[in-house]
Amino acid sequence: MTHHTICALASPPGGAIAVIRLSGESTFQTLDKVFSKNIADVPANTLHYGQIVDPTVKDSESERRVVDDVIVSIYRAPHSYTGEDSAEISCHGSRYIAQRILQLLIDNGAQQAQPGEFTQRAFLNGKMDLSQAEAVADLIASNNAATHRMAISQLRGGFSHELNELREQLLHMTSLLELELDFSDQDVEFANRTTLLNLATAISQHIKQLTDSFRTGNALKNGVPVAIIGAPNVGKSTLLNTLLHDDRAIVSEIQGTTRDLIEDTIQIQGITFRFIDTAGIRRTKDHIEKMGIERSMQAAERAQIVILLSEPNVPFPDLRLTQKKPILHVINKCDQTLPSSSFLFHRDTPSQYIHISALTGDGIQLLENALVREAAIPEIAGNETIVTNMRHYEALMHAQTNLQRVLQGLGSNENHPNTTLPADLIAEDLRLVLNDLAEITGGKITSQETLNQIFSNFCVGK
Amino acid sequence: MTHHTICALASPPGGAIAVIRLSGESTFQTLDKVFSKNIADVPANTLHYGQIVDPTVKDSESERRVVDDVIVSIYRAPHSYTGEDSAEISCHGSRYIAQRILQLLIDNGAQQAQPGEFTQRAFLNGKMDLSQAEAVADLIASNNAATHRMAISQLRGGFSHELNELREQLLHMTSLLELELDFSDQDVEFANRTTLLNLATAISQHIKQLTDSFRTGNALKNGVPVAIIGAPNVGKSTLLNTLLHDDRAIVSEIQGTTRDLIEDTIQIQGITFRFIDTAGIRRTKDHIEKMGIERSMQAAERAQIVILLSEPNVPFPDLRLTQKKPILHVINKCDQTLPSSSFLFHRDTPSQYIHISALTGDGIQLLENALVREAAIPEIAGNETIVTNMRHYEALMHAQTNLQRVLQGLGSNENHPNTTLPADLIAEDLRLVLNDLAEITGGKITSQETLNQIFSNFCVGK
Repeated sequence: MTHHTICALASPPGGAIAVIRLSGESTFQTLDKVFSKNIADVPANTLHYGQIVDPTVKDSESERRVVDDVIVSIYRAPHSYTGEDSAEISCHGSRYIAQRILQLLIDNGAQQAQPGEFTQRAFLNGKMDLSQAEAVADLIASNNAATHRMAISQLRGGFSHELNELREQLLHMTSLLELELDFSDQDVEFANRTTLLNLATAISQHIKQLTDSFRTGNALKNGVPVAIIGAPNVGKSTLLNTLLHDDRAIVSEIQGTTRDLIEDTIQIQGITFRFIDTAGIRRTKDHIEKMGIERSMQAAERAQIVILLSEPNVPFPDLRLTQKKPILHVINKCDQTLPSSSFLFHRDTPSQYIHISALTGDGIQLLENALVREAAIPEIAGNETIVTNMRHYEALMHAQTNLQRVLQGLGSNENHPNTTLPADLIAEDLRLVLNDLAEITGGKITSQETLNQIFSNFCVGK
Repeated sequence: MTHHTICALASPPGGAIAVIRLSGESTFQTLDKVFSKNIADVPANTLHYGQIVDPTVKDSESERRVVDDVIVSIYRAPHSYTGEDSAEISCHGSRYIAQRILQLLIDNGAQQAQPGEFTQRAFLNGKMDLSQAEAVADLIASNNAATHRMAISQLRGGFSHELNELREQLLHMTSLLELELDFSDQDVEFANRTTLLNLATAISQHIKQLTDSFRTGNALKNGVPVAIIGAPNVGKSTLLNTLLHDDRAIVSEIQGTTRDLIEDTIQIQGITFRFIDTAGIRRTKDHIEKMGIERSMQAAERAQIVILLSEPNVPFPDLRLTQKKPILHVINKCDQTLPSSSFLFHRDTPSQYIHISALTGDGIQLLENALVREAAIPEIAGNETIVTNMRHYEALMHAQTNLQRVLQGLGSNENHPNTTLPADLIAEDLRLVLNDLAEITGGKITSQETLNQIFSNFCVGK
């Protein structure tokens, strides 16, 4: 596959050094015009110190204008990240210099890369499958041990390997069934229906394991959604700030489902928690509880864990949710000196209540422990695959649906236990399952549009 | 010189890739413990794909926990940036991964680098002189064509070369004079006093050229200071915002002389302008002109150019500055429909006034042209040296003072034209001049404290 040559800044400006990537057929022709050394014949995987020069400006008869002293890394097809001829330029970390060098590369035949275009080329050139390519973006975005581990496992082909094993089993089944078709006039049965049924059941269970893991994977990747619900002035805003401040790891803000919604996240014991509708909570200080009952309910419905916040002598709101989910009853303002009777209200089942003071931080540790406990993120075994990608999850769910038809066709239908469908119909459904799984690794991909959509979430330079 | 091994992140996290630097005697021993490939015997200047692994965590009997797929660059002493054995690890640009890798390097024998420590080692190992080392920081900070050009010229040794030529001439003078001392009982004069006087005069003029260039160098590096002065409600805040918005290059904020003072800068035609006390200006919208006369005057005194802002029918404030400097008389709000007589007030010497509307942007281009004109930054010739560093400027001023004593000793004293000092006294003063110049390149450096102070302005990882 031939491509134009692309270039992009691969590291953000503002550090000691900046790295500019270049990949494509004419990488070395472009580089030759702006680099002081001749790198046409140097071996692959070597480093070269020299100058990036502006060929259009001469400081003297023989000297071209030096833009920067750089190190150039040379990679040759197919042994590069993209599978193409590639180079990396390490320059001084000034935004001005990086822009000048990029402009020189573009003036001399390269084009500015699109987001994820280097990785997309790696995929198109067979350097990695699609699920591995997607893991690259996850790896870059990983901000704790769990997300890092899932991404590196996926990048290193753990998930791809598992899917390929499933596909091989399915292909074996399909080939046996299709063999029967060739002898359809003889009514032979190469594939024992009970054996096939057992195999399909095992595959179905395996796929169910994977789709079940998505709840964990999604929680680890995007954070466990938590809603803080309570009457006006019980201290929701203070509690949120205390939790954010108490965050011992990286405090960050993530983009919510809509562009304008920023949700606060914290990391507790390596697990990310995402607070829903904190804009509403944060606003209460100014606007005296703009967040009405309706909005609180919506937040609680979207949450995986609800923190119901109250204070001594104030009853908890009566929350009726459509789904059962963990609700933490938290009593705030326990720092205030109050007559002992004031706690009476909450004394009926004291073990279920967490007493805190959002102001002093008392009890926050208990609340954090309760959040981690209720998040119920299972220990992930060393080689266990966790599905973290919505696209993969949907493909697996689709595969499961088609596989259920296979199972019914093989006689697992409880109402008609012995009704088996003809081999050609079963084989057809099996092909659909195979296609669904192939979509994940990109084996049976599909439009440029789909690819563009997948890679549009990447940063430029990767 | 032997050193412990240092490591640091050299590119900021948040991009596609991150680069971690490692330098020192035990670079390869440390790397060997955490890198999947044996790089002990690989050639210098080569690239190696492999995995960073955590040697303390095993995922199976034989497999150590993989932290990331990386590319490692190998440099061997003395052919590296620092002059020591060095390596660079290109990993995926996740902050979590970069921190994990740094921690692994530190757990296996490396130490976190101090700001500028890599460049300090390059200096100590004779890879560059001190003025070149300082140029590295300037280069990274360069944000326009002029600062970039000055820094790259200094990095590539332009200034060092010039200083060395001066030092050679001074050394020649000194050796001639000191030769006389050996024959002091014979009253010979190896060095013709007139020749010496001419030479010292030429050197003095050259040093003056350099110190004169500091005004330009400093303005280009730190920005030309501009104050906007005017009565309440004439539109100072709007003008500032319009100028900042109109900035066609990089808009940035720089740290002022004190840590808490952020001053706005803009780039016009490649020249940086720095607006003084914009905090005072910005605040006016809320606080209705907190910036009193006293504060305005102080800003105007510190500025190199003053923009005096008024509006039709409002007289300009009467500004009495201790130093003469360019004052641009700018009349704002020219978009408002006013009876023609309202402009009368300013019609006496119309050519000196710039009519603008900060709101609509009318006339802003004229104001920008006037700023560039009054900044009076001279065209810098291709090979001209511009002093940009306060430390260098001070050393040169010191050298000039000592050189004046040499000149007087050689008989240039106007009051006593023919009084020449003995050779040993002149030689002593010449030695002082030599030392002053040597301080710039670090030839005669000095305490670790001085070095630390110079390199403390660097970023970590350089």
